[in-house]
Amino acid sequence: MKFKRSERIVFITEYLSRRPNERIPLSVFVNKFSQAKSSISEDLRIIKAVFEEESIGRIETTHGAQGGVTFIPHISYEKATKIVDQFKQEISETKRILPGGYLYLSDIVGNSSLMAQFGDLIATMYDDKKIDAIVTIATKGIPMAHAVASKLNVPVAVIRKDNKITEGLTVSVNYVSGSTRKIETMILAKRTLEEGSRVLVIDDFLRAGGSINGVITLMEEFKATVVGVSVLVESKDTPGNRRYKDYTSIVKVSKIDEYNETFVVEEGNCLEYFRKR
Amino acid sequence: MKFKRSERIVFITEYLSRRPNERIPLSVFVNKFSQAKSSISEDLRIIKAVFEEESIGRIETTHGAQGGVTFIPHISYEKATKIVDQFKQEISETKRILPGGYLYLSDIVGNSSLMAQFGDLIATMYDDKKIDAIVTIATKGIPMAHAVASKLNVPVAVIRKDNKITEGLTVSVNYVSGSTRKIETMILAKRTLEEGSRVLVIDDFLRAGGSINGVITLMEEFKATVVGVSVLVESKDTPGNRRYKDYTSIVKVSKIDEYNETFVVEEGNCLEYFRKR
Repeated sequence: MKFKRSERIVFITEYLSRRPNERIPLSVFVNKFSQAKSSISEDLRIIKAVFEEESIGRIETTHGAQGGVTFIPHISYEKATKIVDQFKQEISETKRILPGGYLYLSDIVGNSSLMAQFGDLIATMYDDKKIDAIVTIATKGIPMAHAVASKLNVPVAVIRKDNKITEGLTVSVNYVSGSTRKIETMILAKRTLEEGSRVLVIDDFLRAGGSINGVITLMEEFKATVVGVSVLVESKDTPGNRRYKDYTSIVKVSKIDEYNETFVVEEGNCLEYFRKR
Repeated sequence: MKFKRSERIVFITEYLSRRPNERIPLSVFVNKFSQAKSSISEDLRIIKAVFEEESIGRIETTHGAQGGVTFIPHISYEKATKIVDQFKQEISETKRILPGGYLYLSDIVGNSSLMAQFGDLIATMYDDKKIDAIVTIATKGIPMAHAVASKLNVPVAVIRKDNKITEGLTVSVNYVSGSTRKIETMILAKRTLEEGSRVLVIDDFLRAGGSINGVITLMEEFKATVVGVSVLVESKDTPGNRRYKDYTSIVKVSKIDEYNETFVVEEGNCLEYFRKR
């Protein structure tokens, strides 16, 4: 097949979209299409303009013999606001209050296209933080952790609360659950996280912060730097003793009324980040 | 911004890539670009040709007032073989044998770009099966389950082995683990799966099949039809008593030698599916 410009553009757009934050040597496209670098650069210029105009992301090119192109997902404040507003509506529509005032979120974390949107949002907030890995706590944090990891092109390490033989050598910490005051254990396989990594912690729900305190202690054992903590839903009712203050959230819930099955949803502090830019 | 054809093509390619198996009304693009339907159809024709040529997927358009376009990820036998071959190599490179002859897979399920490739592969195999939901077992199956779900545009329901208050009303079954012969419990929140759904079961590892037997029993309670079972790694050493026979696997491992830390990897039966096409 001999490719015309419009056809090359289809291929390159799809190729880059699928490989966020991965540096692609220009030679990949030069060889694929048997075209001069200048033609490929012109293709990339067109893609770059649309990606920026449409708030999809940035296209960064480096020149010279080692020339390459990287697609960095990056959304605007307007797009972030739209995602948060739609989610506020979605989370309010369904009956979610469970006995004990817990919030049912399984349908939300089971929605991979919603997770992908949060992946874009969170990746934008942390894209200049040189993150090496995403750390999450099993099980509800895993889908959002992978959504962010796929955008930042980094691995995911999953902390478990039960020790399984399939983890090999593990490191564990005991911590006090902020809401129930029970002592629990967290375990991370030694091999899943490189020592000295810069990590972003992702979780579904931030209540009193006991789990996050546990994660932070566990990260010290891995000599890791916690660059940030980002959660889907933050509870305003139980601020508790949050050792880590610099977290971001997509939405905040409060006034959970178990008997009338009502609660209040507001935007989380993630949009403050976009406003500050 | 006034969009030229090449610019429209960037936008539409990215828009469709991000929304697999979602029918997009043509009016989305007609309105966005203030263009006649015929121009948009020509844009789509170009994208379709490249997506087919490059084994990315199919672009299906329906005409008339309700006209729409759907991107269906669909890879070729050649691409599937390449994915499986690369994975065979990757899984063989690292030391993976754990005490008891278990295989360490956390690094693999923590790699979201690898999961996305398996998502394409598995979605291709099951794309004509009218799947309503993906069902998986916590925790290692979750990343691949989401990778497939995002391609098929369906929700994920996660079966847990511990009952958590945040699940609400649950249905549970006891089953016998095929390898350890212990009685275990599986739980699925009533709300995460609609009754009568057609489900595809995804898991990381198929050993004796006890977990899958448990899932099948649980699915009967939800009046669900199990359309298929697809696993990342299948063990050839312990065929056990697999009640469900029609599963697919990416790779098969055998001759796990705990003391010499060796094992044999072959391609799974997923490629047979592609050969039969």
